[in-house]
Order: sequence, then C-alpha cells, then structure tokens
Amino acid sequence: MVVTQRRRQHVDAVLDRFFGLAKSRASGIGPRYVTLWETLEKNSAGGKRFRPSMVLAAYESFGGTDSETAAYVGAAFELLHTALIVHDDVIDRDFIRRGGPNVSGSYRDLAQTAGIPIPTAEHRGLSVAVIAGDLALFNAFRLLDRSGVAGELRERLHEILDEAMFASAAGELLDVDFSLHPDPPSVDDIVDMERLKTAVYSFETPLQAGAVLAGADDAAVQALGSFGRNLGIAYQIVDDLLGVFGDEGDTGKSTLGDLREGKRTVLIAYAATTEQWSEIEPLFGDPDLDQQGAKRIRALLEESGARRYAEALASDFANRAWEHLASPSLPDSVRAEFRGFVSTVLERAK
Amino acid sequence: MVVTQRRRQHVDAVLDRFFGLAKSRASGIGPRYVTLWETLEKNSAGGKRFRPSMVLAAYESFGGTDSETAAYVGAAFELLHTALIVHDDVIDRDFIRRGGPNVSGSYRDLAQTAGIPIPTAEHRGLSVAVIAGDLALFNAFRLLDRSGVAGELRERLHEILDEAMFASAAGELLDVDFSLHPDPPSVDDIVDMERLKTAVYSFETPLQAGAVLAGADDAAVQALGSFGRNLGIAYQIVDDLLGVFGDEGDTGKSTLGDLREGKRTVLIAYAATTEQWSEIEPLFGDPDLDQQGAKRIRALLEESGARRYAEALASDFANRAWEHLASPSLPDSVRAEFRGFVSTVLERAK
Repeated sequence: MVVTQRRRQHVDAVLDRFFGLAKSRASGIGPRYVTLWETLEKNSAGGKRFRPSMVLAAYESFGGTDSETAAYVGAAFELLHTALIVHDDVIDRDFIRRGGPNVSGSYRDLAQTAGIPIPTAEHRGLSVAVIAGDLALFNAFRLLDRSGVAGELRERLHEILDEAMFASAAGELLDVDFSLHPDPPSVDDIVDMERLKTAVYSFETPLQAGAVLAGADDAAVQALGSFGRNLGIAYQIVDDLLGVFGDEGDTGKSTLGDLREGKRTVLIAYAATTEQWSEIEPLFGDPDLDQQGAKRIRALLEESGARRYAEALASDFANRAWEHLASPSLPDSVRAEFRGFVSTVLERAK
Repeated sequence: MVVTQRRRQHVDAVLDRFFGLAKSRASGIGPRYVTLWETLEKNSAGGKRFRPSMVLAAYESFGGTDSETAAYVGAAFELLHTALIVHDDVIDRDFIRRGGPNVSGSYRDLAQTAGIPIPTAEHRGLSVAVIAGDLALFNAFRLLDRSGVAGELRERLHEILDEAMFASAAGELLDVDFSLHPDPPSVDDIVDMERLKTAVYSFETPLQAGAVLAGADDAAVQALGSFGRNLGIAYQIVDDLLGVFGDEGDTGKSTLGDLREGKRTVLIAYAATTEQWSEIEPLFGDPDLDQQGAKRIRALLEESGARRYAEALASDFANRAWEHLASPSLPDSVRAEFRGFVSTVLERAK
C-alpha cells in the first residue's frame, strides 16, 4: 500500500511544524495574517497526503531509511498541491472543496457575515485565495531546503519540483483555454492536458523525488517517472469515468457535477466524434441538469461507445505503466511496492 | 545614483537568459505555453529595474565586485516584483499597467479578438494572470540558486526573499481588507500596510540582500534594512501625494486615478479625521469624477491640512532613514552611495 497511516503521520508532523512556525511569525504582524495562515492550514489538513505518500513509498522502496528527510520532501509536494488547488479554485470561481468552504469560501463567508454584499464578498474571497496560494507555492520550495539536503541532491530535488510546477502551469493554461471553445477538444488534447495539469505533479515527480532522495540512478529515476506519468493519466481517466458513472455512495463524488459543469474529459472528447453528440450536446454543461437528464447522457455515452473507449484507454495507460515498472533498471523492491497500486487505480473504475 | 544604465544592463542580461531558457523549455510543451512566457517577459521588460538596482548599489557600496552573481540576486527581486504586480492586478481586476495591457489585459484582448464575449474574455485574462504570477513567483527563488551562491550565504539570501514575500502577502491582505470597509483606515493602518505591501520587498530586503551578498556584518545589514524600510515608507507617501497633487507632465501618473479609485492613502486617512471629510467623501471614489471634482477635492485636502500632514510625515520617515544611514555600523562608502537617494525621494514631492 502506498498511502499508509505511518507515512501520513510523518508528513503531518512536518506540516504541523511548518504551519506552527508560520503562524508564530504571522502573529508578529497581526491577527488577520494569523487567520489567513490558519485557514490555509485547515485547507491543507483536508488532504489525503497522496503525493507525499508516493514520495515516501518510492524512497523506501529504494532502501531509504531517513523518514524525517523524506517526510519534508513529501510535505513540499503537499504544499505544492495546496497551492495548485487554491489557485485552481480561484480560476474556476469555486468556493467549496471536499464538501466544505475552501479558502475563497471561508473569506467570502466571513465578509458576508460582516454584512458585505455577495459580489464584493466573493471578490474578497477570491482575492485572499490568490494571496494564500502564493504563500503555499513558494513555501513548497522552502520546505525542500528545510529538509536539510545539500549540494547536488538539493539542486536535483529543486529541479524536480520546478518541473512539477512548470508542467502544472502549462496544463492549467490548456484547461483554461478549453473552456473558451464551444467545441470539445480532441482526446489527445485532453490526455495532454491531464498529463501536464495533474499526472506530472501528482505521480511522476513525487515518485522521482523519492527515488532521487534514496540515491537511485538516472535510469531508475527515469523508469519510475514514466511509470508514474502513465499511471497518473490512467488515474485521471478513471476519475473522469467515476465522475459520470461512479456510485456516489462509494466514491463520495457527485455524478452530476462534471456533467453540469461541462467538464472536458476523454469521455466527452470521444463522444463529440460520434453521432450521439447531437443529442448529448444540448444537455451537457447545463447547470440545472437533473437526474433524468444525467441518466440520458449516461445512456448516450454508453451507446456512443465513449464509456468503453475511456475504460480501454485507462487500461492502456495502466498497461504502459506496468511495462515501465517492469524495467530492469528498477529493483524488485520497487515492483513489490507499486504492483498493487496499479490494480487499485484500475479497480476504482469497476 | 542608485539606478544606473550599467546596473540595468547586468540585470537585464540575467533576465534575458532566464526567459530564453524558459521559452525554450516551454516550446517542448506547446506554442501556447511559449506565448505565456513571452507575455510574462514583455510585462517584466517594462520595469525600471529599481529593486535590482538597489541590490547592486548595496552590494557595490560594501565593496562587492562580482557583478554577475549580484545581478542574479537583483533579477530574483525583479521576478518577485513581477509576480506581485501581476497578482495585484488580478485582485484589483486591472487590465492595464504602465499605459498598456498587462498579462490579464493581453489575454483578455486575445480572447476578445477571437470573438469571445467580454465577461468570459476578462475571466480568461485574469485566470491566465494567476498562472503567470505563479511562474514568476517560484522562479524568483530559483534564480537565487542559479546565482551560484552556496551554503550559509544561499540560505540567508533565501530567508531574505522569504521575508520579502511573507511581508508582501500580509500587506496585500491588509489592503484587500481596507476596501471592504466604508470608512477609511487610520494613518497608522495605512503606514503599516504600505510598509508590509511595498517597502519591505522594494527597499528593505533588496538592500539587505546586496549587503549580505557582499559579506556585511549583521549590524550593518540591520542598519541598512532599517534605512530602506523607512525610506520605502517615505517613498510610498510621496507616491500617494503625487497621485493627487503631482504634475502629470512630470510624473507620467494620472492625478485622477487614485481619487476615482478611492485609493486609501495617508492623505485620505488624515482628511477623514477633519471637518472637510463630509465634503470630500461624496466625491471621493467616484469612477466618473471629473477635473473639476478633482480640483475641489485637492482644495479640500489642502484646507484640511492633509497635504501638509502627508508631506511632513514623508519628511519624518526620510529623516528616520537618514538616521539609520548615519549608523556607525555602516561604512562611509554606503553613506556615499545612498545619500543622494534620500534627497531624490523627497524632491519628487516638490
């Protein structure tokens, strides 16, 4: 198992220390700044620590034993994740995440409680979220330094985190552009966007960082990164499938949200090339889509072959991930650690 | 003189290399990402390189001779500045800066040209600016590393840049909150905000970074930072005075903008405590304020003593800066470098 209680606790300890220090520093400036840091901490605390767990899993599978240092590197990826979702919510004008108010939402609510009219309160929420995301972002890089790594190793880890952010920004840009065009992008475009926006910082680079920290050679780091990249894409496609066809009881995800939002996914990109699209299109992206309309879209997506296509594509990327995991550059201990993970990702789709 | 052609050129050379590398890397991802980097470069190119010049001036005044390394540290502050103004424009929903489109504006215009309706085009512009600001922000810290400094020195410079961003975020938060309240904040609140939002990253920390890079001792770094902090506040107050009373021909700044925007400044904070406020208030912050209305506000600000108060306050902070510059911890070479600068800052107000 990649995500374990022990790994979570190591990373949480680092993040607790980090936020504690920041709040203490902020108290020298003023109570409102402390509140901002508390809000950021609360938002970060809601996460599953998925990315840090991957740093630790890769690190340990290569024989690494210094959990403390590895936990710092993991925490750095968690802060990057926090920065990206806080800013993503600003871009999407979302005030809710994980079923509760995010940073924008908390500050909008505070303003509303103080009697500020809604449009101004929302703008204030979004403004504070821009600031909060900035704080999380640069501190991701600062946390790498606080791990105590030095010299060449320090530089390599920074380059990996740099790559994570460089790719994420490119992916976010593509996603923003997709929403400008009335016609859905191609399947290739969606896969490219999902690779850049999510797979690189969520899978590929955390795995590589863990491997580099443990002293793995270049070929191994490369192979593990490729494994992560492909698995990450598979994961995203499965996520998109669950967002439409999943069991809400199981997944905790709404199966109306993506359809109402008009989210560009592999399912939609494929369906747009079929004759069923003329029936799907008027319903898709309707903010008031009801269960009946959603049911209709699902049936059409099945009919068009889009569901089957997406499932096959996810399988395809998972298989590619397998092939990279099988690379002779990777020790058996790494295969042992991540073998189950590939299955877990695919199982979610069933 | 602090800002010189030579210093500008050194810093520009570093920034050219930085953006060149980034664009080259981006071309491996796609043309739209290259365009984003080109836009960010263009926006950065419009700056006066004021903050980098201060890094270099401090560095050289302490006897530093490695202009190359110092230019990297200077460039780091310029990227931080770029990040802050790009995100500040997102928060203020500004599409213009320095008389032309900023990042938000460029992307809004591109979208409009493509036939996208204005509200969506504006949202797209602001969204891309969030991404662009993120890229500039983390790269400010990366540039410090590319300077080649190592060990303790590297860590100290990172701490200084960290402090610059930590303070700026706090200042921006205060500024955002000011706009929520109908009543203007106190003079002390404004000074506090201007110190955090601008003086720390524009004056205090660049000077300290230059001094640290040159090997200055702690007492000297402290004194120079205090000089910078106080001078920075004086500069901001003068800026606020010019924004209302300046000669547009001289300053290039509109003297209607701040009044129309309802910008919270020391002038306004003071005037709000006087009997003239009841006449100023209805005019202040009116987006359609005309030259006559502006003339009336100026007369009232003079009558209330607000102008005289602000001028005296700017002088007061400049004098405090002088006192710190006179500290025995600072070598005469530092005083020689910055003596004229204090006068320059104050001269602007006349």
